[in-house]
Order: sequence, then C-alpha cells, then structure tokens
Amino acid sequence: MNKAIGDRIDSEMDGLISDLQTMIRQPSVSAKKHGLVECANLISHIMQKAGITTEILNLECKENDIPPLVYGEVKSKVNPKGKTILFYNHYDVQPEDPIELWDFDPFSGNVIDNYIYGRGSSDDKGELITRIKAVESFLKTNGDVPCNIKFIVEGEEEVGSPHIEEYLTKYRQKFACDGIIWEFGYIDEKDRPIISLGMKGLLYVEIIAKGPARDAHSSLAVLIENPAWRLVQALNTMKDNAGKILIKDWYKEIREFTPNELSIIAKEPFDEQKFKREYGINKFVNNVTGIEVCSAFVGMPTCNIAGLFSGYVGEGAKTVLPSKSMAKIDFRLVPDMNPEKQLDRLQKHLKENGFGEDIEVNYIHGERAFRTPSTDPFVKQVEESANDIFGTAIISVSAAGTGPMYSFAKILNVPCISVGATYLYAKIHSPNEFARIDFLNKTTKCIVNIIEKFASSKQQDS
Amino acid sequence: MNKAIGDRIDSEMDGLISDLQTMIRQPSVSAKKHGLVECANLISHIMQKAGITTEILNLECKENDIPPLVYGEVKSKVNPKGKTILFYNHYDVQPEDPIELWDFDPFSGNVIDNYIYGRGSSDDKGELITRIKAVESFLKTNGDVPCNIKFIVEGEEEVGSPHIEEYLTKYRQKFACDGIIWEFGYIDEKDRPIISLGMKGLLYVEIIAKGPARDAHSSLAVLIENPAWRLVQALNTMKDNAGKILIKDWYKEIREFTPNELSIIAKEPFDEQKFKREYGINKFVNNVTGIEVCSAFVGMPTCNIAGLFSGYVGEGAKTVLPSKSMAKIDFRLVPDMNPEKQLDRLQKHLKENGFGEDIEVNYIHGERAFRTPSTDPFVKQVEESANDIFGTAIISVSAAGTGPMYSFAKILNVPCISVGATYLYAKIHSPNEFARIDFLNKTTKCIVNIIEKFASSKQQDS
Repeated sequence: MNKAIGDRIDSEMDGLISDLQTMIRQPSVSAKKHGLVECANLISHIMQKAGITTEILNLECKENDIPPLVYGEVKSKVNPKGKTILFYNHYDVQPEDPIELWDFDPFSGNVIDNYIYGRGSSDDKGELITRIKAVESFLKTNGDVPCNIKFIVEGEEEVGSPHIEEYLTKYRQKFACDGIIWEFGYIDEKDRPIISLGMKGLLYVEIIAKGPARDAHSSLAVLIENPAWRLVQALNTMKDNAGKILIKDWYKEIREFTPNELSIIAKEPFDEQKFKREYGINKFVNNVTGIEVCSAFVGMPTCNIAGLFSGYVGEGAKTVLPSKSMAKIDFRLVPDMNPEKQLDRLQKHLKENGFGEDIEVNYIHGERAFRTPSTDPFVKQVEESANDIFGTAIISVSAAGTGPMYSFAKILNVPCISVGATYLYAKIHSPNEFARIDFLNKTTKCIVNIIEKFASSKQQDS
Repeated sequence: MNKAIGDRIDSEMDGLISDLQTMIRQPSVSAKKHGLVECANLISHIMQKAGITTEILNLECKENDIPPLVYGEVKSKVNPKGKTILFYNHYDVQPEDPIELWDFDPFSGNVIDNYIYGRGSSDDKGELITRIKAVESFLKTNGDVPCNIKFIVEGEEEVGSPHIEEYLTKYRQKFACDGIIWEFGYIDEKDRPIISLGMKGLLYVEIIAKGPARDAHSSLAVLIENPAWRLVQALNTMKDNAGKILIKDWYKEIREFTPNELSIIAKEPFDEQKFKREYGINKFVNNVTGIEVCSAFVGMPTCNIAGLFSGYVGEGAKTVLPSKSMAKIDFRLVPDMNPEKQLDRLQKHLKENGFGEDIEVNYIHGERAFRTPSTDPFVKQVEESANDIFGTAIISVSAAGTGPMYSFAKILNVPCISVGATYLYAKIHSPNEFARIDFLNKTTKCIVNIIEKFASSKQQDS
C-alpha cells in the first residue's frame, strides 16, 4: 500500500481512538429511539472534520420519527467522472441490556491496552471510523481521493432497516455507485479477515399469548388457562430438538448452493474448539462438525427465541397466573426465502395447530437474504487488498447475520462486499462489546487499499 | 349478635378504614424484603391502640433477616382459664408488579364509595383489621373478652411462610390455643362467605436453563443451543394440554375425598358465567363444568407458570441468543402430597427427559396441604356465626390457595377454619386489589359472633 498514507494512519491512531470514543459516548439505541438525531449530527460533524461533505437526509412521515440518514461525499479531483465506491454503515447500536453484566458503563468508550470497550465500539461505530479515517488519510496526504467516495450512514440497522428501501428509492440518483463496501466484517482468531459476499435475511416477530383479562391468583390455575403454558405449547410446535423448523413449507424456496459456493465453503477454515471454548459450550446444535459448520453459518435458516416474558420475574416467589405471555422470535432466512411469505406460513401453522384465537403474531420486521456472485471482479480487488495488509483473507459465501444488502443490490444494482475490523469474539450485541485497536488500524489501511485498487480497476474495466 | 357491640362496629367504621389505610400505606413486600420491620412495628402499634398486648417476636439467625412476628394477647377476665381462640394473619403483601396496570399508587389506600384500593387492602391487612376491631369492640363495650384471644401476625406468608414452623415450634407454649381462625376467607358475588376447612399445599421452584457463557449474537443460533428453546422443551414435557401433570407418580399419594367431603362439594354453589365474565375467558381448563369445577377448586393439583424470562424483552427488536432462561413454577398440592418428594420427582423427570446438565431446578419453597375434618364442632360454631350475619354461608372442603395450615394444625394440634372479608373478585395478587367496606363491617361482626359462640361452647364442651 501507499507508504505515506500508511504512516499517517499509524501516527494518527490517537485521533481515530478519540473520535471513536466520542461516537461511543453518544448512545444511539434504535430499538429504544434513544439519542439517534444527536448521534447523526455527531457523525456528520466527525465526517466533515475529515474533509467529507455531508448532508443529513430525512424521509417525510406523519410522526416525523424516522431517524435521519447521514450522507457523505468526496468527489475525486483527478477522476470526477470515474467510478464511485459507496460505504454503507450505521450509527445506531443494539440495546445495552442486560446492563448489569457490563464491567463498565456501556457508553464509556474505556480504553484498556489494545481494546476499546462500549456498545457500538465494533458494531458499527468502530467499522465506520475505519472508513472515515481511510478517506481522511487520502485527503490529508494527497489532497484528493483516487475515485469518488460516497457514504450512507443509517440509524435503523439494528432494528432491521425498516426505511432503508425508502431512502434508497428516494435518493437513488444521489446514491448511484459502482460497488459497495458493507458495514462490517469479522477478523478471526488468526488475524484473517473474513470477506463475506452475502447476508442472511430475517423475519422478526413477537408472539403474544393472551389469557384472562387481568393477572389472577395462581390458585385459579385449576380453571383458567395460563397463557404462558399456551405460549410454551405453541413454540414447541415450531421447531424440533435438532433445530429443524416444523412449519410447513418453511424450506420450500431455499436456493441450492452453486458449485462455486460449495468450493468456497469447503475451503473456509473454522476453529471449532476455540469457538466452543469462547462460548462455554460442549457441542453444536444437532452435533454438526467440519464442513457442516460452515454450511450452517452461511446457509442454514434459524428460529431463535430472542426474548421470553410472562408474569413475575423478580426476586423470590409470586403466585400469579399471568394475563399474557410474550416471545420474541428471530428467523434467519437465506436466498430465496421471502419474509412476508414465511410470516403467512407461521400464522397458518399456529392456526392449524389450534393457536388461532388466543395467540397473535406481531410482525416486527423482515429482510430478504442476498449474495454477491463470487465471480464479480470486485471480489478479487477486495481480497487482494486484504491479503496485502493481513497476509491471508478468507472468502465466505455469506455472513450468518442480517442486513439490508438485498435492498441495496436490488435498487443500486451493484456488488456488495463485507470486510471490516470486528474481531470474531468482540461480544457484539452482548455486554462488554469491544474493538481491537490493532484491527482498527489494519482495516483502515485495508480500506485505503480497496479504494486504490477500485480506482485503478476503473481504467481497466471501463 | 350482641347489639351494643354491633352498633359500636357500625359507628366506628371510620376508625377501621383509617387504620386499614395506615396499614396499606406502609409497603411490606416480603418477596422484596421491603418495609417488613416497619410494618410489624406499625401493626403492633395499631393492636396496642385496640387494647391488645403485643410482643415483637424474632428468630435468631446468622443474617438476622428473618422478618419479625407480631404476637398479640388479651386475657379474658371472666374466664382466664377457659378456651383460647387464635387469629392467624400476615402483614406482608404480594409484590405490587406489574405497577403500570394499577389505576392508583398501589400503596395509596384510596377510598372510593364502598371500596378501599391498594396492595394488601384485602390480602391480608383488610382481614387483619376485622379481627383487631372485633376484639377492640368487646373491650370498649364490655371492658373484657368472653374467651382468651391470641394473635399471630407473620411477615412471610406471601413467600410461603418459610419460618412459621420455627416460630410455632419455638413459641409452642405461648401460642397454645383451642381453635384457629385463619387469615382470610372469600365472600362470593351473592354476599355468601365461603368457610374453608383446608388449604392446598405448594411447591414453588425456579427452573433455569443455561446456554452459552454469555449472551451471543442470534446469528450464532446455527451452532449454539438456545437455553430458551431448551426451557420451552423441558416445560413442555411437564404438562399436557388438558392440564394433566406428566411427571411420573405426581398424583400417587393423593388422598381420596371422604363421602362427607363429597357431599359438601356437591352442595357448593359456583356461578360459572359470572366467573368467566370476570376473567374474560370462554372456557375452563379441560372444559370442566358443574361439580367438576368445585372438585378442581378444592382438590386438583396444578402446575402453573408464574413467570418466564429470557433475553431481550424491551421495545422493538434485539437479535440475541440469550445465555440463560428462567421459569417460575408453582405447583399446588393436595393432601397427602409432600413437597420434598414432588421436588425429587420433578428433578428426576427432567433428568430422564434429557434435561440433566443444562437445566437446574432451584427450590424456592414448599408447604403441605391440610384439611380440618368437617365434623369438628368448631365448624358448626363458625358456620352459625356467619349465617347470623350474612344469611347464608357456604362450607368448602378446602380453599384453592395455600397457607401454612398444615404446620399450625400439626404443631398446635387444633382445628383451623378460614372465614373472612375478601370479595371473590377483589383482585388479590393483581393490580387494583381492593376491599369492600360493607364486607369489612360484616366480617368484623362475624368475628365477634365467632368469639362469643366459641367462648360459650367452652362451657358445653369442657
């Protein structure tokens, strides 16, 4: 890579860390609509400081509570009509709960040795700062960027990006680009970045079982049906012990892996023992091992209980028959499953199993899965950029997580690739989330490389 | 009944209401160890004001956090060596949660027309005030009581009276008596007091399913077993849809109803439609009807989910794979089920169904069921006392709820009878618990009657 830029990144790490701390200290929990506008303004300010022109974009709506989107742009002076790379990131974070399990204030941004702690330190403020600093390094060193740069930093990724399609549609011209670097990427325990070419989809629902009109004394359980029992019975019809989803036709539209995808899966390394140690578990779901593990990661749909609540959950005993009971369920989807269709199937399943009247399913959100073809030239550019910095990079057919990649790819019609700074065991979505400073440094350099390769590939491709 | 005493009760209702409000305004939630010592002192003060000699009794223990017991006594001047009646009540209350469903502050004691609202207004501060005021009325009118009176007011009834046996054993001599009036009694929608001769037992446990070492990103559900699913699967093995408990030998020791009990059950009225309307339900568990309803109330064991918790239960979506999952379960027991034995069976059941390693059962408490024989002369005295005030009383073989009646009956070796002031739909253990002022008045008179009949029966019996 460009030595002058690399040296600048090394010498200005304090500035990167301090900007990231500033971001972490501004809570921005989209599930609770907490601090979103404040965070968008802060991000815009940090981007401007780096030399990026920004705009706060809004959608019109009745309640006016759709979080703003931060748009950023740097025109290349040397090649203003050339290719454009777009960085998609998000400034919102997962809820900080359970707060009692954090060793620090979740919004402290505490730095200890090689680690920065805090909600969002990796996901996604840590990733975002690597993109901003890469662009800043070009501008400070050369006074220019080799290709046009755009940024989309949204505020609802952690609640399923419910308005990103609207933003993408409304600002389709503004967002036009030739390739997208996705908002995150894992780096494994051997310092190998995992370059993901896809994302799973998601169907997130709340299932509510309704019982008596009000909480009742539990002695009345002789007569009154308990909605927590009904919920347990309903949930139990949905999945078997081996992890198989029992809802009719759930797997019907799933696209088979291509031979190329299969060969990528076969090559993907995965340290099963390290993973088990890290999570304190003895075995995997359905006892999968070897290539099955990677296949599951990139291609298995799930039905996960993300939350359960009913009755009294405080200290000691309360003998209550609760009036309702709730489960939050997230289903990961793979190509070509359609969340609306899967929701219909779930509702039909519950009705047919006798849970029609007293159980209701509330749709929270849905996203489709997407995979960029592994043969796209952009894949090679990103892979080479990462190899240059990290030694070895791993290509993965799809991440196990979810993001609105399908919407971006469909509306902007470009390849999307995930590459980033997040250590595989960085406790994202969990207490004590952290970022590794060495990875923030290397990923910033990797992004610089990607911009350079992407810019020069322009001349070859167009 | 004694007219002078009855008139005094009527004319001094303001004092009763105001003392009850004072009690309600002192929170005393035993599950949270909130305000217990303060409440014991307050109760003692109110009893002293009524002319009752009181003592605050304590048990020695290392942590010194066993709530005190308020003991009260009035010696009969006219008959100091005669019979003694003991009133058992409790000053602790159920947790006020879910607090957002209350129309008032749960500890306000608001009076509106015929209702006093607040946690404990019926259960059990409302009941207690009727006993205190009955004794006070004797003392103020006659300067004496016709028989010896004792009071036990404990502070742990709502968490299963874990130390009442120790108190009863330690103070067996002090508490010696000839009959016990239990801490509560329902009055039905036709103003008929339900005189219960027994109580069900209870086994209260927490079932904890343990998963990964920490909360994980839910995309990892492809590999990591979710403890909420494990809990759902475990719970589902315990009970069928008809309410039958599937744990081996669960029903083994259950004592058959005697012919006398069966005839009492057959006579017990129950307004099924009113009950269904009150709780907003269409049908009863297992579609029971008629005599089955009363049989279930007095004699059916239950397995009730009192609480469920796992993962994220706040607003919106969090895609988390929780590290643990919890259910609070209360099992109502009937004679001659033994809670320790049932706990063993539950643990064995879970182990045998494959939930041995990752699921733990925490015992919270247990109590045995008890029934006073319906042929005991004390039953007739209480029934006649109630008939005199209310017109008609209903005899019931057992309440559906639980209390430490077994311990009292075993240690003090006397009959125990429940009769009280609690309207059947008074929302005890629920938001907006209330007491009916007309019932507080009538029950105070009923207690006066019971004391008189019990005192005069002495001469006949001994």
